[in-house]
Order: sequence, then structure tokens, then C-alpha cells
Amino acid sequence: MKTSLRFLLAARRCEMADLQQLVETSQLVRNTAALIHHLQRERGLSNLFAGSKGLQFAQERDQQLAATDEAVNTLQASFDGLNTDPMRHGSRLFSRIAHTLHGLEALAHIRSAVAGLRLSTSELSCDYARLIARLISVVFEAADMSTDPALSRLLVALFNLMQGKELAGQERAAGSAMWAEGQVSRAAQQQLLHLIESQDKCLKVFESFATPELLELWQKCQSSEMEAERERLRRMLRNAGPAQAIDTTKSGAWFACCSQRQDEMRLVEDQIGKMLVELAQARLSVIADGVQTIEQMTYQVEAADSSGPAIASANLFPADTTNSPALGGPALEKSVLDMVQEQASRLQAMAAELDLVRASLSERKLIERAKGLLMAHQQLSEEAAHKAMRDLAMRQNKRMVDVAEAVLSMVALLGQKV
Amino acid sequence: MKTSLRFLLAARRCEMADLQQLVETSQLVRNTAALIHHLQRERGLSNLFAGSKGLQFAQERDQQLAATDEAVNTLQASFDGLNTDPMRHGSRLFSRIAHTLHGLEALAHIRSAVAGLRLSTSELSCDYARLIARLISVVFEAADMSTDPALSRLLVALFNLMQGKELAGQERAAGSAMWAEGQVSRAAQQQLLHLIESQDKCLKVFESFATPELLELWQKCQSSEMEAERERLRRMLRNAGPAQAIDTTKSGAWFACCSQRQDEMRLVEDQIGKMLVELAQARLSVIADGVQTIEQMTYQVEAADSSGPAIASANLFPADTTNSPALGGPALEKSVLDMVQEQASRLQAMAAELDLVRASLSERKLIERAKGLLMAHQQLSEEAAHKAMRDLAMRQNKRMVDVAEAVLSMVALLGQKV
Repeated sequence: MKTSLRFLLAARRCEMADLQQLVETSQLVRNTAALIHHLQRERGLSNLFAGSKGLQFAQERDQQLAATDEAVNTLQASFDGLNTDPMRHGSRLFSRIAHTLHGLEALAHIRSAVAGLRLSTSELSCDYARLIARLISVVFEAADMSTDPALSRLLVALFNLMQGKELAGQERAAGSAMWAEGQVSRAAQQQLLHLIESQDKCLKVFESFATPELLELWQKCQSSEMEAERERLRRMLRNAGPAQAIDTTKSGAWFACCSQRQDEMRLVEDQIGKMLVELAQARLSVIADGVQTIEQMTYQVEAADSSGPAIASANLFPADTTNSPALGGPALEKSVLDMVQEQASRLQAMAAELDLVRASLSERKLIERAKGLLMAHQQLSEEAAHKAMRDLAMRQNKRMVDVAEAVLSMVALLGQKV
Repeated sequence: MKTSLRFLLAARRCEMADLQQLVETSQLVRNTAALIHHLQRERGLSNLFAGSKGLQFAQERDQQLAATDEAVNTLQASFDGLNTDPMRHGSRLFSRIAHTLHGLEALAHIRSAVAGLRLSTSELSCDYARLIARLISVVFEAADMSTDPALSRLLVALFNLMQGKELAGQERAAGSAMWAEGQVSRAAQQQLLHLIESQDKCLKVFESFATPELLELWQKCQSSEMEAERERLRRMLRNAGPAQAIDTTKSGAWFACCSQRQDEMRLVEDQIGKMLVELAQARLSVIADGVQTIEQMTYQVEAADSSGPAIASANLFPADTTNSPALGGPALEKSVLDMVQEQASRLQAMAAELDLVRASLSERKLIERAKGLLMAHQQLSEEAAHKAMRDLAMRQNKRMVDVAEAVLSMVALLGQKV
């Protein structure tokens, strides 16, 4: 007969399996973040290259392609090493990885189109952004899978930092194209403004979830000198008139100060990656100790059941051991009960905390959810659904999340069984 | 190298594992529901017995004890047969089961206290309600674990029906005590009113999630005659003055018409249990077919990769087969891409639908969440936290969920890192 202790053990072992899984996905997340960093840089240099009609930054871009390839190989190795045994709720993570791998296969096509000057700067920016979005969605699923609140908190901080960094990367790329092309359209200026606002928002969420240690690192590594330079160049882009030519020789300076910013974020991002693995391992060893205690207790209880509580108690807790309370019979029963209740309380408190942390993923989730509904109802592809919502947001001058809420409430109103 | 197809396969296998798990837990849920039905009846008869100072319903109660024991054994066998291998997110389910098993061990104590007339009707009702609440929480976790929206919909319908049935069961027990004791206090009348209102609310949620087939069954199996009788007896209890004696000979009629209602609910409940298992199995076989298709495609792609696309394509799709399109090379590539995208869209649409279904569990979750916070912050036991919130709700004449929201927003306001 399986006793409550057996199920307590099973519950604890599930927690261990979750954490082991998390150690594995944390490594994956780190390698994903590293590849994204390279792709972002490659996008920026490709914009400088394409914006200057291939006259500038050809060599820098070539060097970056090689560095990106290395990061692709590392991530691929990490995918190869991933345990793909069926696990609960793993389907979305694996499906995102499949999607990402397909995206990576398209990279060669993008690159050769860039090299042949067959893509406009905005087209190539879009292609890179799409690929990076897939990579970020892998991190999102990993964050959504964690069942430990402290780890979820770190993952949410990381996810928001990565989103902010990608928006900053898009700003670098968009600005690089403008400087290299020597002119700025009104639409491009609006896009820039949007990128700046959204990245600030993501960084605020990151800061609200970051540990004090991370906040300190983040403050310390930001260069105020480069920040001032970036602000100055930003202003020049923002204030340029539609027909006005801008100084193309500034493109290098723009790329340098934006890249400095990217590197600062990367530093913090990498620190979170390390902390994730360390924290998961620390949690694991605490739970492993707990499992050992319950295992011992299980043997005691089962021995007590088979040979009578009095004898078992005498055997296990000799009368001369003054430090151990005389466990066995009712006392043993009591301590099992305490443990079952302690575990139930702990898991419930954890679930409560987890819900609170995850709520911050909800904005993103709302958008994904609305997109999913559009895809299912209107038979749209993911990109078409995204575009439809983005266009609506722009036309109505609303945020994506407002459009998402409108879509969802509309469906709820119609009472459709989706 | 693991290709996108490999991860697509892994994603599908995860879905299969989730469904297999669900088939297993559905069986558990069915046996849990069956035991709850017996415990509810045992509680009602115990109230009639205790309320009449042991003069009535002794034999009926004895028969019921034996029937309950049988259901306990069946559920225990179901626990024994449960695969307790670590699985993701399984910790809460297993912990609930451990908690439940402990509750079941206390059943013998409750019964002997009832037999010795050492418990008041309200005390014994409370003890049974607590045990049943633990059993229902097992069903809640099972509902919260499903990743298939259609199955989640059924589980949410079931969970709400079971909650409504338990509230109806508490009404039967409370009314039984009043009829048997021959008097009705103002507090007891208020409790009755509360039980009636809450059960109606649960049944409305059940109806909104039930399939048309279930709704038809539910409408068909309700006896209007018994319903009228129950309404008549309810009114007598509600209108009785505090000092007024009520006709104790009506206790049997009350128990009979309430039990009829319980049995009707049980019928629908059991039907949902059957549907759950059938639906999960049907889903499983669809996904298993999908897995086979992807497996075949994986072999084709890998063969194509190892022997060159042209030859592989010629081998697999001879030119004279006019029905098969010439898959291989770019065509094969295209169909893999389609499949990856189809899977990504499908999972996203499923996640969206799932979120909508689960939102209905959110009221319950809010309460659990707030309870968890109170437990963690105030170092309260689960029951003390529940009581604190319930007392607050009564004092402020609010619903539990409002109190829960107040607790949560208070914590959010204080910005405490919970």
C-alpha cells in the first residue's frame, strides 16, 4: 500500500526533476542569449553595410559572420545535448526549438541577399528581428516552465532584459541604416521613438525583478560617457528634417556607443545566466537532503508497521540516545503528519508566489493568446496574425497589449467556444 | 545533429505523455468522486444519527460505513497503481494525495466519535467537510494539470459540479441535523442560505462548461417532483422561528429528496468521468498517428541528407507514382517547414484556449493564493489561514474571493517580495 509518505517522496522527487530540467534549460538559455547578441551585432553591421551600398563595414561584417557561426554551433550542440524525453509541458518548448532551428536554416539566405545588396535595410532588419524573436521565445517558454518562484523571478528579469536589449539592438540597427544612408524619414523617426519607449519599459520590469546584486552590477557597468554620446546622436536623428542630409561619417560613432550599451546589457544577462544555474543547483541540494530525510522516515514507518511500533522504535532510537526524541508509534505518526502538512503549505505558498511572478509574463501572454485566437479563427499564419494586430495598434495608436485585450474580450463577448 | 523534425517529434511525444498521464489521473478522479459521494452520504446519515441522539438511522449509517470503506479501498488501489515517477508539475498533485491519505486515516476516529455521540452535528459536519475538501483538491490539481483545452473544459465542468454537489451535500447534512434535532437556529438558517446560493453558482459554471450532451443528461435526470418537495422542505426550514419546534418525522423525507439530488449529480459526474477517459484516448490516437507521420518524414529527411537529395527522392518516390508528389529536396524541405509551422500554430492556439478555460479556475486560485500568502507571512496553518479569511468575509459581508483579492493587492501594494 502506498502511504502518504510515499506520495510525499514522489512530490519531492518531482520538484527535483523540475529543478534538474531547469539546470539543463538554463544552459540552453545562456547559449541562446549569446547567439542573440551576435545576431544583433550582425544585423547592425549588415545595416551599415547595406545602407552604404556595400561601401563600408564589409570587413567588420565578415568577421561578425564568423563569430555568429561559432555561437550557432554552440547553441546547436546545446540543442543536441538536450534531453528530449517526454516531460510534462515540454511540448511548447520543443516546438519553439523546432521553429528556431528552421529560422536558423534561413540565415544563410539572408546573408547572401545582404551580400548581394538585394535586401533593403528595413527588409533585412525585419528578417533578423524575426529570427531573434524565435530565439527569445525559447527563453520565454523556459521562464514559463519554472516551478520555483525564485528561479522564475530571475528568468522573468532575464526575459525582460533580453527583450529590452533586443529593442535596443533594433534601435542600433535602425539608426545605423539612417546614418549610413544619410537621411531620415518621418516613419523611421517614429519607429525610433517607439523602440526607445518600449526598451525603457522592459528595463523597468527587469529592474523590478532583479536582485540587489544584479541592480548594482547593472548600475556599475553603464558608461555615462557613452550614454551621453548616444543621447546626442539620438537627438540628431530625431531632429533631422525629412529632406535634410545627415552626416554619414557619424555611423561608426553611433554603432560604437550603441554597441557599448549592448555589451553592458550582455554582461548583466550573462550574470543572470550564471546565477540561474547556481541557484537551481543550490535548491536541488536542499531538496535532495529533504528527500533523504523522508526516505529514512519511510523506512522507519514501514519497519514499524511490519514489526510493531514498540520494537521498531526501540531499535531505531535506543533509549540511551538522549538527543533523539523517542520517535515511533504516535510520535512518529505525528512527525509524518507535520511533514505532510509542511510540504503542502510550502507548495501552496510557492504556487502563490509563482503566480505573482508569472503575472508579469501576462502582458506577453495576452498578446500571444490573442494572436493564437486570430490564427485559429481567421486561419492566419503567426506572422500574418502578428502583423494584423500591429497594424491595428498603429492605426488606432494603441499598445499591442490593448489590441490583444480587445481581441480577447471580443471573442469572450461573442461567446464562441474557441 | 538534432534537426527541427527531431524537436517536433519530441514536442508531440510530450503531448502524448501529457495525455497518457491524464488517462491515469482521470481514473483517479473518477474513484475520488465515487468516494466523495459515499462520504457525503455517510455525513448526512451521521447527522441524522447524532441529531436524533442515536435513536434513528443507526442501521442505515452502518450500511453506509461498509459502502464507504469499499470506495476507500478502490481509491487506495488507484493510488497504489499510480505511476509516481517524477514528472513535471506533479509535486502538487502528489502532495495533495499525501494530504488526502492522512485525512483518510482520521476517518476511523471521526466514526467512533460519532458512534459514541461525542461530536455535535456541526462538529462532525466540519470534520467530514474538511476530508472531502482534501479529496476535491486532488481533482482541482488534476484539472490544473491538463494541457489539452477540450479535456480541461471537461475537468473544469467536473470540478464545478463536484463543488456544487459538495455544497448540496453540506446542505443535506445541515438540514438533516435540523430536522433530527427538531429546531433551527438563526445561524443555521443563514448557513443554509449561503450553501444554497453557492451551490447554484457552481452549477452555473458547470453548465457553462458542459457539452450539450451533458446538459441534456443533466436536464433529463432531474426529478421535478423531488425538486418541488425539496423546495417545500427548504422553505419550512427557512421560515421556522428560532424557538419554534419543527416536525422531526420529516427528516427521512428531507434526506430522501436531497439524496435524490445528490444521485442525479453523481450520474452526470460519472458520465463526465467516462467522457474524460474516452476523449483522452481519442486524442492520444490522433497524436500517435501524427507522430508516425513525423517519424516517417524524419527517416526520409535523414536518408536524403546522407545520400543526397536527388537519389533519395528517386528512391522514395519513383517517377511512375503519379499520386505522390515528388517529395525530396526543396519539396520535402517545404513540407517539413509547413509541419513545424502548423505545430507551432496549433500549440499556440491550444495555449490560448487553455488560458481561457483555466481563467475559470482563477477564483479558486485567487483564494488559494491569498491563503498561501497568509500562511507564509503570518506563519499560519492552512486551516487557520482559511478560517481567518472566512471570518473576515463574514464580518465584512463579502465573498471569499473579494477577501482574497484584498489580501493579494495589499501585498502587492506593500511591494513585499513574497
